[in-house]
Amino acid sequence: MDDLTTPDRGPAPTVPRAARLLVFDGDDPRLAAAAWSRLAEPGDVVAGALVAQLGAPGALAWLVDAVADPGRAVAGAGGADALAGDPGSGVPPGLPPAGRRRAAERLAAAVGRWAPRLASLDPRRELRVLDRCGGTLLLPGDPGWPTRLDDLGPAAPLVLWVRGRADVASWSRRSVAVVGARAATSYGERVSAELGSGLAERGFTVVSGGAYGIDVAAHRGAVAAEGTTCAVLAGGVDRFYPQGNEDVLRRVAATGAVLSEVPPGSAPFRQRFLARNRVIAALTSATVVVEAAHRSGALSTARRAAELLRPVGAVPGPVTSMASAGCHALLRDAVAVCVTGPDDVADLAGAVGAEVAAPPPRTELPRDALGPDERVLWDAVPARSAASVDSVARAAGLDPRRVLTLLGGLERRGLVRRDGGRWRRD
Amino acid sequence: MDDLTTPDRGPAPTVPRAARLLVFDGDDPRLAAAAWSRLAEPGDVVAGALVAQLGAPGALAWLVDAVADPGRAVAGAGGADALAGDPGSGVPPGLPPAGRRRAAERLAAAVGRWAPRLASLDPRRELRVLDRCGGTLLLPGDPGWPTRLDDLGPAAPLVLWVRGRADVASWSRRSVAVVGARAATSYGERVSAELGSGLAERGFTVVSGGAYGIDVAAHRGAVAAEGTTCAVLAGGVDRFYPQGNEDVLRRVAATGAVLSEVPPGSAPFRQRFLARNRVIAALTSATVVVEAAHRSGALSTARRAAELLRPVGAVPGPVTSMASAGCHALLRDAVAVCVTGPDDVADLAGAVGAEVAAPPPRTELPRDALGPDERVLWDAVPARSAASVDSVARAAGLDPRRVLTLLGGLERRGLVRRDGGRWRRD
Repeated sequence: MDDLTTPDRGPAPTVPRAARLLVFDGDDPRLAAAAWSRLAEPGDVVAGALVAQLGAPGALAWLVDAVADPGRAVAGAGGADALAGDPGSGVPPGLPPAGRRRAAERLAAAVGRWAPRLASLDPRRELRVLDRCGGTLLLPGDPGWPTRLDDLGPAAPLVLWVRGRADVASWSRRSVAVVGARAATSYGERVSAELGSGLAERGFTVVSGGAYGIDVAAHRGAVAAEGTTCAVLAGGVDRFYPQGNEDVLRRVAATGAVLSEVPPGSAPFRQRFLARNRVIAALTSATVVVEAAHRSGALSTARRAAELLRPVGAVPGPVTSMASAGCHALLRDAVAVCVTGPDDVADLAGAVGAEVAAPPPRTELPRDALGPDERVLWDAVPARSAASVDSVARAAGLDPRRVLTLLGGLERRGLVRRDGGRWRRD
Repeated sequence: MDDLTTPDRGPAPTVPRAARLLVFDGDDPRLAAAAWSRLAEPGDVVAGALVAQLGAPGALAWLVDAVADPGRAVAGAGGADALAGDPGSGVPPGLPPAGRRRAAERLAAAVGRWAPRLASLDPRRELRVLDRCGGTLLLPGDPGWPTRLDDLGPAAPLVLWVRGRADVASWSRRSVAVVGARAATSYGERVSAELGSGLAERGFTVVSGGAYGIDVAAHRGAVAAEGTTCAVLAGGVDRFYPQGNEDVLRRVAATGAVLSEVPPGSAPFRQRFLARNRVIAALTSATVVVEAAHRSGALSTARRAAELLRPVGAVPGPVTSMASAGCHALLRDAVAVCVTGPDDVADLAGAVGAEVAAPPPRTELPRDALGPDERVLWDAVPARSAASVDSVARAAGLDPRRVLTLLGGLERRGLVRRDGGRWRRD
């Protein structure tokens, strides 16, 4: 441990009895993974790399040792080596002395972050709470685990706490994230609800964040269409947050799923919202932003999705509406493509069986069936009085003989009529 | 002329005296060009190729001969050869027998179109009408001729009839076409007027079609900002069409320009509107569509501009508004990029001195200046009660020693305060 500077650290945190019991009580991977989802904040790449390398129980045992004897554990092969071996950790696998030192420093810093939570660690209690909600803990490798999340690398969730349908892999395969501003306009809420129901009708799961505004409108639309919808929460699934959406979220959990990567009892901090957005982006086939001001968190979801090479759509709105300014910025910067309804979005998500956006219905006027010369001619035929063939030919800039032929055709279609030797529109 | 089928043609058109006088009265290229702008409809590529090859007077003399003796003139070297030698005519220059035959057929058909108008041809009268309006006839090669129009090839206008500023080359160099639906909404008209004035303030000439709705709003905006604006009409410039916009168009002519490729006295037929759109697209640095339904003529302007490799912008609107559906289609098909105001458009037109669109103003909150850990910490500090450092560290997932340091920094910035040994937001 000569490489690691050990400044004045005050009293070392003690390893609490609960964690020791947990670690030595059977190496249950579910308990250990649940514990890690409490110890590390979402997207903690050091935790992700450590758990990937040692497994959740091994990583937990390592942490308990590290807290008991910081120098030894952090310098040990199970620590820096594990971290350095993972491409996501930012440390190259060659492990030169400087890389090793850096990995050791990052691990020591991480232990400093994780250790305070060891004291209150009680995953059994959190699993009991989940159980009382009728929920399921999903781990990577479980059949229900959505492997799309693996695209997040070491920042992938360590577990998913799921209320409702735990076959996440199955229902997320054909899914669209519909996200947007809390401060939505009635226009945005209407469009979001229509997307929610339209996508549900087309067999897509509608994924959103359960928030006020665009999110809840999308959930509501999907629920109304009796489709599957999923709310990814920033806090624990024991609490339907925000409270004003409790009824909708309860219905979402009853028919689809409400899930989170943080355990029951976790509060929805601001950073957890941003981290949650990466889960929404990674979980779905495509992401659509309905309304977003310039600083909306929904833009982070869109940019995350684009980074993950997922298709991104943005719904335009009035340029005079600040609530659409973020969508327009996504369009201008070509992060997103313009989508105006469920057909566009289904097309974007490109899922099997999705209908390509149908061209808008055309109102066929008889004139539309005309050829170019016929159109020119029809424009030249007067509507209120009748004109000679020569006069019509001059006006149209067409050969009089051709005009005579064309007039016959127009007459058969009831577009012009003869009036003596002259012609007028019919 | 054995290749050319000569069916029953009825009596051959006679060459009127006016045309003969015109042709033999001095070969005035201005008179001949003016005559051609009456004889051929806008965008007639056969006329364009013939005039390019023989000059307007030569082409006119050829036409007079062709009408007098169809077989000889059309088969002659001055006819089919001229047409076949021009890449725009669709006939390769090698002149194999089949190509020569096809060229001869196209020329014969064209003579059939042009001949009926020879009778009433009187370019001197049309020039007198223009003169009374204080207008100017511009020909290709004149110093005021905008060479951008040459991008249209043989479909380029043969002349421009201009009321107002005849230095078209100069004022069109930095110009934007602002076009859109007649059936505009108040939203569209507002955005169009703001673009018109905003672009005028940025030194751009605002070019449009003088129509109701989006067009006239753009002209009005530019006039209000005391900028230069130009209306390209589908009919003659002697009549300000539509009548309801007469006052605005009069002001446009007085401060900018009203122009057309068809002579005074020409009616604005439907096909002339479509042909006119190509002039708007070719004349300007960029084209912006403000509002357009799925079948709007403004879309043809946008697609023409894209074909000419001019930048194209579309203003988004509510997806619930059919008046914006065409704009959204342009965005979805990547024909246009999303523009929301004059800065975006100036950026698009890419003119020298144009300001790059400024990022939207940010409302800086004290929290925005925080680092990532500080933000996490600030979220974890309770607002209504005070909490211990350890409790805050647990909530934030941060090392308690780091928390103590960070709290000091937040305290100095007035974001948190000490309450005994505990902390709360300030």
